[in-house]
Amino acid sequence: MKLKNDRFLRALNREPVDITPVWMMRQAGRYLPEYRATRKRAGDFMSLCQNPQLACEVTLQPLARYDFDAAILFSDILTIPDAMGQGLYFSEGEGPRFRKTIRSPGDVEALPRLDPERDLSYVMDACSLIRRELGGRVPLIGFSGSPWTLATYMIEGSGSKDFRRAKQFIYDHPEAGHLLLGKLAGAVADYLNAQIRAGAQAVQIFDTWGGILSTPAYLEFSLAYMRRIVAGLIREHEGRPVPCILFTKQGGLWLEQIAATGCQGVGLDWSVDIGQARSRIGGQVALQGNMDPSVLYASPGAIRREVASILAAFGPGPGHVFNLGHGITPQVNPDHVAAFVDAVHEFSASGSKPASSQGGG
Amino acid sequence: MKLKNDRFLRALNREPVDITPVWMMRQAGRYLPEYRATRKRAGDFMSLCQNPQLACEVTLQPLARYDFDAAILFSDILTIPDAMGQGLYFSEGEGPRFRKTIRSPGDVEALPRLDPERDLSYVMDACSLIRRELGGRVPLIGFSGSPWTLATYMIEGSGSKDFRRAKQFIYDHPEAGHLLLGKLAGAVADYLNAQIRAGAQAVQIFDTWGGILSTPAYLEFSLAYMRRIVAGLIREHEGRPVPCILFTKQGGLWLEQIAATGCQGVGLDWSVDIGQARSRIGGQVALQGNMDPSVLYASPGAIRREVASILAAFGPGPGHVFNLGHGITPQVNPDHVAAFVDAVHEFSASGSKPASSQGGG
Repeated sequence: MKLKNDRFLRALNREPVDITPVWMMRQAGRYLPEYRATRKRAGDFMSLCQNPQLACEVTLQPLARYDFDAAILFSDILTIPDAMGQGLYFSEGEGPRFRKTIRSPGDVEALPRLDPERDLSYVMDACSLIRRELGGRVPLIGFSGSPWTLATYMIEGSGSKDFRRAKQFIYDHPEAGHLLLGKLAGAVADYLNAQIRAGAQAVQIFDTWGGILSTPAYLEFSLAYMRRIVAGLIREHEGRPVPCILFTKQGGLWLEQIAATGCQGVGLDWSVDIGQARSRIGGQVALQGNMDPSVLYASPGAIRREVASILAAFGPGPGHVFNLGHGITPQVNPDHVAAFVDAVHEFSASGSKPASSQGGG
Repeated sequence: MKLKNDRFLRALNREPVDITPVWMMRQAGRYLPEYRATRKRAGDFMSLCQNPQLACEVTLQPLARYDFDAAILFSDILTIPDAMGQGLYFSEGEGPRFRKTIRSPGDVEALPRLDPERDLSYVMDACSLIRRELGGRVPLIGFSGSPWTLATYMIEGSGSKDFRRAKQFIYDHPEAGHLLLGKLAGAVADYLNAQIRAGAQAVQIFDTWGGILSTPAYLEFSLAYMRRIVAGLIREHEGRPVPCILFTKQGGLWLEQIAATGCQGVGLDWSVDIGQARSRIGGQVALQGNMDPSVLYASPGAIRREVASILAAFGPGPGHVFNLGHGITPQVNPDHVAAFVDAVHEFSASGSKPASSQGGG
């Protein structure tokens, strides 16, 4: 089936587009009442992830409301450790938790090798179904957590304020840390390739917690393993290149090193000025981002001003996928999302430099 | 009284020192059993802050155990909004909270103007007493929270995961936001000058939450007000320059702009490579930092390796005050702090480049 809207893929290839493509991290999520209804039907969060029909349903929900230029598989960043037997679950109002944790080098050695097509078949089934249901409307993005991000949750057993157990592990047991990250990198590469074969037309690696590390620790324990994954990914599928986006939250200091991994796109959180990011790495990769998700709590007028300001900071020319700098939060008013998406398309269509008056209102 | 150990002040002036000076943010704190004992006698945290004798006692406690090269006033970053009538309190196991919050432009207009010498006399009494008790052993550092950091707590009423109320306030009411930050900047400058007159020999501004902002918002709502404070500080007292250190957590992207405020020292969190920071701004300012506080959970051997690696990254020559990249956390083993302090002095005394073998063990 021919892709009707390929702006997102073209922008990642740094080819010209008519208007700047836009999607939102966590666009299928709790801010949407229809998502909350489906989630309720599914029972808990993992049951929703593991049911391809329902995962497909929530993936498509935001596209029915907004003119997003891409769909992203509804799933969780932590499916791999769950399939390795760590027992992922979500308790109401808290983040992810694992029943088993990694506390010693022996725990790392005991981790099984995954076959994602067999052990995470529900994800591949969801990818195939979503592709079929999309009918070529927009491309489908697959994803995984980064090895370091998976490792932090596996060691801590949950999210953490300071991730001290995870850090203590790599400082006190660097070899076991590398063994763990190597196992995870292999699993993530296999998993993303399986998603691509099942229909994902681009993939994103979420390095949610790379930014909590020192520069040398980030390069050694997070980026090195994302580089290994990028090198192992299928480059082309169905006659098209399959771009890969790396997103390290709070990774603004390391953009040059991230761009040098061979990825096609770099996700930016909102702390970075996207114009400065472009002058640093825009010759090598496309940029994705980077509005502060908290701006969606402000008035539609303030949202429009901020969109205009980010488009102006990026400047004219190709290579920009508009997004938030992190996932949308549950309390956002869905009408504000419409203001956001429409502003991206409106201001980017009107020429390379949105006038500041367009940002008002 | 003559200062017996002026390494810290000399390093901030980028003058040569025999060994690299070291202190720790939150060095008088809960990781010390003697601190917990005094805190228990005082009752709650604010009663400890407001009792000059007890504040002096806990300020001096870490100096009795470790060879720190500076003392820092025991107080809280949020004393100013408390003195403005916002009602600061601490509930057990949680962060700071305010009884009153800023929710509208009218709330900003109603904030009173402070006279720190009158309204925060307990802080000045503590400064004078600590100076007397120190007897010239090491210099005393005074401090305050930055205007933006004070504003986030005043608007949210507490700490926050995403500070969405504070951000919504500045996006929806930028003029009232600037009025609030201007009032706070005036109060912080007056407050730090009062601390200097009462005995503080250097001051630090803690911009704990500047790093949650986008680049343009940081420059407009946080850094501009710290620049205003720096411009209003007493430059010399008791015949010595009084250096000012600006510390924006997660401010690594903005080091050039921070250094251009006219401050003498820039505090670095652990995400920045201190060698790269030095090549960016080391010609203008001294650098303070930057070991990840979580390294203190690792073994003494790992702590020593990390200290050696940071000293090597900074390289030879003056202008480095060793510190953590953020405050020490309560669960750290006090023996590990000794390993940290001793490693800084030992490795920096042995020449400009600690051999990697010195870092082992």
